[in-house]
Amino acid sequence: MGPWKLITLDKARQLAMSCMSGLQRQTEIVGLREAMGRIAAVDFINTEDNPPFDRSTVDGFAMVSSDSATASMATPSVVSVVGEVKMGSLAEDIVTQGQAIRIPTGGMLPEGADAVIMREYTRDAGDGTLLVLRSVVAGDNVIRRGDDAVAGSVVVSAGHRIGVPDLGVLASCGADHVIVVKKPVVTIVTTGDEIIAPGTVPAPGQIRDVNSFTLLALAEAAGCEVLLTEKVPDSQEGLSAVLEAAVAKADVVLVSGGSSVGDRDFTTTAVQSLHGVKIWFHGVALKPGKPTLMALAGETVIFGVPGHTVAAMTVFKEIVEPALLAFQGVISVSPRFVIQAKLGAPLRPDAERDEILRVRLEQREDGVLAWPLPAKSGLITVMTRAHGMVYTKAGQREMQTGEIVEVQVLTDRVSGTWQGVLR
Amino acid sequence: MGPWKLITLDKARQLAMSCMSGLQRQTEIVGLREAMGRIAAVDFINTEDNPPFDRSTVDGFAMVSSDSATASMATPSVVSVVGEVKMGSLAEDIVTQGQAIRIPTGGMLPEGADAVIMREYTRDAGDGTLLVLRSVVAGDNVIRRGDDAVAGSVVVSAGHRIGVPDLGVLASCGADHVIVVKKPVVTIVTTGDEIIAPGTVPAPGQIRDVNSFTLLALAEAAGCEVLLTEKVPDSQEGLSAVLEAAVAKADVVLVSGGSSVGDRDFTTTAVQSLHGVKIWFHGVALKPGKPTLMALAGETVIFGVPGHTVAAMTVFKEIVEPALLAFQGVISVSPRFVIQAKLGAPLRPDAERDEILRVRLEQREDGVLAWPLPAKSGLITVMTRAHGMVYTKAGQREMQTGEIVEVQVLTDRVSGTWQGVLR
Repeated sequence: MGPWKLITLDKARQLAMSCMSGLQRQTEIVGLREAMGRIAAVDFINTEDNPPFDRSTVDGFAMVSSDSATASMATPSVVSVVGEVKMGSLAEDIVTQGQAIRIPTGGMLPEGADAVIMREYTRDAGDGTLLVLRSVVAGDNVIRRGDDAVAGSVVVSAGHRIGVPDLGVLASCGADHVIVVKKPVVTIVTTGDEIIAPGTVPAPGQIRDVNSFTLLALAEAAGCEVLLTEKVPDSQEGLSAVLEAAVAKADVVLVSGGSSVGDRDFTTTAVQSLHGVKIWFHGVALKPGKPTLMALAGETVIFGVPGHTVAAMTVFKEIVEPALLAFQGVISVSPRFVIQAKLGAPLRPDAERDEILRVRLEQREDGVLAWPLPAKSGLITVMTRAHGMVYTKAGQREMQTGEIVEVQVLTDRVSGTWQGVLR
Repeated sequence: MGPWKLITLDKARQLAMSCMSGLQRQTEIVGLREAMGRIAAVDFINTEDNPPFDRSTVDGFAMVSSDSATASMATPSVVSVVGEVKMGSLAEDIVTQGQAIRIPTGGMLPEGADAVIMREYTRDAGDGTLLVLRSVVAGDNVIRRGDDAVAGSVVVSAGHRIGVPDLGVLASCGADHVIVVKKPVVTIVTTGDEIIAPGTVPAPGQIRDVNSFTLLALAEAAGCEVLLTEKVPDSQEGLSAVLEAAVAKADVVLVSGGSSVGDRDFTTTAVQSLHGVKIWFHGVALKPGKPTLMALAGETVIFGVPGHTVAAMTVFKEIVEPALLAFQGVISVSPRFVIQAKLGAPLRPDAERDEILRVRLEQREDGVLAWPLPAKSGLITVMTRAHGMVYTKAGQREMQTGEIVEVQVLTDRVSGTWQGVLR
């Protein structure tokens, strides 16, 4: 197939992940407002009982529950109101049998009380006397001290991506700052003399830059801070200088294009020329995505990804993203949604490479049809027309129209109801 | 139940969406780098064929395919190399029968050629002569002009959330700027004398602010720009002044807490005191989430959401978020993943309100178990312990251990394999 020795996608992903998980990641402290979506760098341990006191969950009256044992609309219990708990203040009064204390939602349960009767189920009988129209049992309408999280418990684990619920728990535990993994710095280098900026009108033979934008968005979604380099001329000297500068200030350098074996593909030689560089692999038995390269220079990882847009996105999702997540110590990865569908057209898996083929889905009365989209990886609208992907293995037999395939659904690009499996 | 007239969740959501979709949304122009995740405000129409010329997808030789009809390793075809296409330049030479022109990946197909033979399947025979070792047919290794998107086609529709593939297509169509919906401005007002900042040690009876953080993150995830107000004292005058200022500069004001009927719940009266305000609803037959209020003052929508954190999150996701998306004209909403599970404990649906109950899931050999979590909506770790939600209808019969329920899975909080349906 060429001068390189291809390795499988699984092997490439595993090498990339193991390399990057071995590199030193940095941490930083951010304010809670900035913590959303960040990766916790250490276990967050709650240092105190939460809530720190018994609280009422309703507006009502704190009382001794046994006083209400026989209470009903017909036969109310009668108690004396001996005080009021103020919101945000210590409950100073003590409740004893036959007594009640007015309490707001969130108020601190006074000593002696073991339940709260909702205001709606009481009547003011005048003279400081209250009729209780329903029975309550111990604990009713009360959150106990430590019910949420006792002192010493881990409320957010290291490696967990902080979501909305975690933010809430961290806030309630007093974390106004959180130690998170520093965002990996990714520099994107786009090669190719024919590449021009999107706002430019292409001269004959020129093509607009796409990968800078898709790779930028993918890297940001993978938790990275992204730097773009200026346009790099297609010369080995030019690219070497750009790479050297990028390696000095980034955790990861993504080079788009030029890692193939064409006459003008300087990426490989430019990478090889870097000081102390080690090539981890060059060439993956993946379609699209063969001309993929990974190297390590000092503490910086360099990925050469194909210039073709769909191939670049595929390699990013299958190899680069898992490695970036491993580098950040992420312990949980997003599940994938997989459905079974009938092929709308035959599918001829590549003989020598694993293949990831984009398909469009169509709901029919007798099941879901999957239509393979053109595999020419230079086509860009294939990405927006696709509803999912079919993975095939190198040398797998040809599949006929009507045969069942598994489709990994792009959940942000489908609507309607689909039966499947979350993996 | 109280002085208010409860409406159903469906009705509340429908009112909120119809109100907000009727308000005027603003648009703005952003650079392509900033367009990720934004909502397209107008259809984006491709004004030119894309790609603008026939391109090679490989490094090789452009030729007349019929010249290779009988080519094989044993019986190669012989052609003369008459030139070279330069990357990013007009292909000036013309190919005729018996000729070939060297072409790089992405190069412009010269006139006369209808296919490209990969370099790997050729041999240089010296003297400008090339041996072709395989046959190609018309169109092989070529992307035709307009293959991606012909001039006049809509490549991104108004109301579509711009994702990575859309960014790529927009870039390739020359869009360096995109017209998007301006982010709605949401002001969050957190009420409650007992509420203190997370970095503070609570005095007896005080509790840390949680909702500012969870509502902020939820509103940002719904595409909004969020302003937080300073802490508001629990007095009607104080709250009225804060609300009036917030209404003047926000599209939506979210008031957390104080919309119940407790003695100290000033939100409702403060909202009612606003100039020209109209209350759309107050009280939703939803558990948790009853004390929910919606009002319109001028062009600003005010939502009063419960102070309890889980209730506030629930009301945001069920009512506020759909309304915010309707305001932005979003045409596609994220699908939900639903599984069937056996109840691990009985479930007693509320008699008068629809209920949304959080559950923890457990995989067993004979199926998935759903364990209802405590419904006390003041508990915050319920959010992080939950794997999904069960929706029940008001007055629905009690369900026993072992009965099948539908669980909407929180896909960012589960791992492993789950069989279900995307809706």
